[in-house]
Amino acid sequence: MLNLYDWLDKVRWSDHGLVAAIAQDASSGRVLNLAWMNREALARTVETGEAHYWSRSRRKLWRKGEHSGHVQKVKSVRLDCDEDVILLEVEQQGGIACHTGRQSCFFRRLDNGDWVSVDPVLKDPHEIYGR
Amino acid sequence: MLNLYDWLDKVRWSDHGLVAAIAQDASSGRVLNLAWMNREALARTVETGEAHYWSRSRRKLWRKGEHSGHVQKVKSVRLDCDEDVILLEVEQQGGIACHTGRQSCFFRRLDNGDWVSVDPVLKDPHEIYGR
Repeated sequence: MLNLYDWLDKVRWSDHGLVAAIAQDASSGRVLNLAWMNREALARTVETGEAHYWSRSRRKLWRKGEHSGHVQKVKSVRLDCDEDVILLEVEQQGGIACHTGRQSCFFRRLDNGDWVSVDPVLKDPHEIYGR
Repeated sequence: MLNLYDWLDKVRWSDHGLVAAIAQDASSGRVLNLAWMNREALARTVETGEAHYWSRSRRKLWRKGEHSGHVQKVKSVRLDCDEDVILLEVEQQGGIACHTGRQSCFFRRLDNGDWVSVDPVLKDPHEIYGR
């Protein structure tokens, strides 16, 4: 019988049942964030076309943008050679992936021995999430 | 006294002393690979300007390209908002990051419920590594 989830079995889940997932902006090419997925998060991502992750700290599934509206529409899903990292090509709604209100979570650059914020805050987090 | 390694202390190392590190090609924007770094790997990466990683399976430090010549020259080092993921912008020597001889390790794309290799092999791995 056809197993519709064979592709999920091909992923090498960690001992904790997770894989790292990188989101890359389809238009700018910026790497936006790295988060974790369990089997359900990856299945839902593919089924709904919106990025879902597993929060290790809160121990729950979350749909990226569920509070902020900054949903990630998934254009493609890739797997690496070791089969333990996912790469999502996404259309980032609102142009903001980071909870700090920046386009990308990678807004700090090492510069003369210090991490320096080099990307602008596009929207105040209080405005994004309410108080 | 000035501590030249303060920036290393600002990274949130996992319980195993590691962070995930993503390499992105500076010219094409392709995400090339995700590997792991311990403190020494990150320090050497910055000191030498060439990507060093920690192999979890072999339990040793490696300089990317030490056998293949496919060294990654580091143009910038970024840190994410949670301070536990590194993003390297690199010039990929030889244009090949993957041990399979492809530009990127993310050469498989999910397509109709299966992972399909969609990127060409640029150089036979036997040629890269010898037999």
